[in-house]
Amino acid sequence: MAMVTAVPARSRQEERSQQTRQRLMAATVECLAELGWSGTTTTVVAERAGVSRGAQLHHYRTRAELVLAAVEHLAEVRREEVLREAAALPAGENRTAAVLDMLARLYTGPLFQAALELWVAARTDQELRAAVVPLEAKVGRESHRLTVELLDADESRPGVREAVQATLDLMRGLGLANTLTDDGARRSRLLAEWARTLDRTLGRAAPNRTGATKKGTREAP
Amino acid sequence: MAMVTAVPARSRQEERSQQTRQRLMAATVECLAELGWSGTTTTVVAERAGVSRGAQLHHYRTRAELVLAAVEHLAEVRREEVLREAAALPAGENRTAAVLDMLARLYTGPLFQAALELWVAARTDQELRAAVVPLEAKVGRESHRLTVELLDADESRPGVREAVQATLDLMRGLGLANTLTDDGARRSRLLAEWARTLDRTLGRAAPNRTGATKKGTREAP
Repeated sequence: MAMVTAVPARSRQEERSQQTRQRLMAATVECLAELGWSGTTTTVVAERAGVSRGAQLHHYRTRAELVLAAVEHLAEVRREEVLREAAALPAGENRTAAVLDMLARLYTGPLFQAALELWVAARTDQELRAAVVPLEAKVGRESHRLTVELLDADESRPGVREAVQATLDLMRGLGLANTLTDDGARRSRLLAEWARTLDRTLGRAAPNRTGATKKGTREAP
Repeated sequence: MAMVTAVPARSRQEERSQQTRQRLMAATVECLAELGWSGTTTTVVAERAGVSRGAQLHHYRTRAELVLAAVEHLAEVRREEVLREAAALPAGENRTAAVLDMLARLYTGPLFQAALELWVAARTDQELRAAVVPLEAKVGRESHRLTVELLDADESRPGVREAVQATLDLMRGLGLANTLTDDGARRSRLLAEWARTLDRTLGRAAPNRTGATKKGTREAP
């Protein structure tokens, strides 16, 4: 009988622990995006998450541990959101532009800003850097795989793998260009052209540029 | 007679002042690149430059003033270096690849790292941000003009202006991808493909991809 009631009790405890961790991770990314690396202290994060310092220390012993877990977890959550959102995207000739628009929103949002703070702090902190390098590699691989999937890109075609990589490097650059001022109007024009270029590399007919003819813009199949 | 000797004396004094400012600015960019924003204190910079604290305060009253002057000045110095170096670049079909390679070296060097530290610090510091926003706009305009000149790009051609902008956003993204690990091998492959794509947008025949035919890669003139 003791065994029967002990199981749900432990399970409730585990659920509470998981909720605490998720609140701490969400608060960490918020703090990084709003206050930067130096403003993201464990005290500020615990306050914002409404979690006691004791409970926080139980789950994450150091600031680095908390921040790394937060960026990794939130990147996974965003990836799943993007995949769900992608199911509603158009399948026709405007799909590439829609995918780029979705990626651009991700790279100009709080998760990119949080990751930027972590990456830059790790640049001049050897201990942090050792932990961030494998995380960067993991996030990089998963972002690449996600983009290939969203674009339905055939990487056996010459130049396609590099074009997918360039798309993600471009997104990082656009995220950086948007950190101090709203770069939205320039970004939209730029991505409309990038979509056309990318479609040609992917071996698809690009939609017409308004007011231009299709002459010379199709690539032979 | 007093007037005659006073002029060279003042001029020597001005020359010494200019040398002091240049030593301080060079040391600031070095510190930002090596130690990051938080490690770049006025004390550390003065020590590295071999300049007294009094002389430093005479030229730059605050850390923000020093850092802004340093990034602006060094960006101008690098731009002139790039223009000089560009005079030696090939003029033929490999010019675009050579220009991209030169830009990539700039965006993976200490000036980019210093600017990155300044941009990221300004993201969450309102006072600094107000000063960095006009500097970012100025550096952005000048980098664009430089790239148009190096590529001899005709911006009246549809898509060319956006392709030049995308090239610089891509460089920023590649700079960021290189901050924690050496990304050189991936970057070379990626830029070789981007040179081909860019040449098509610029209205030029791209050089052959090794092992591939030119079929379908030329754009109608």
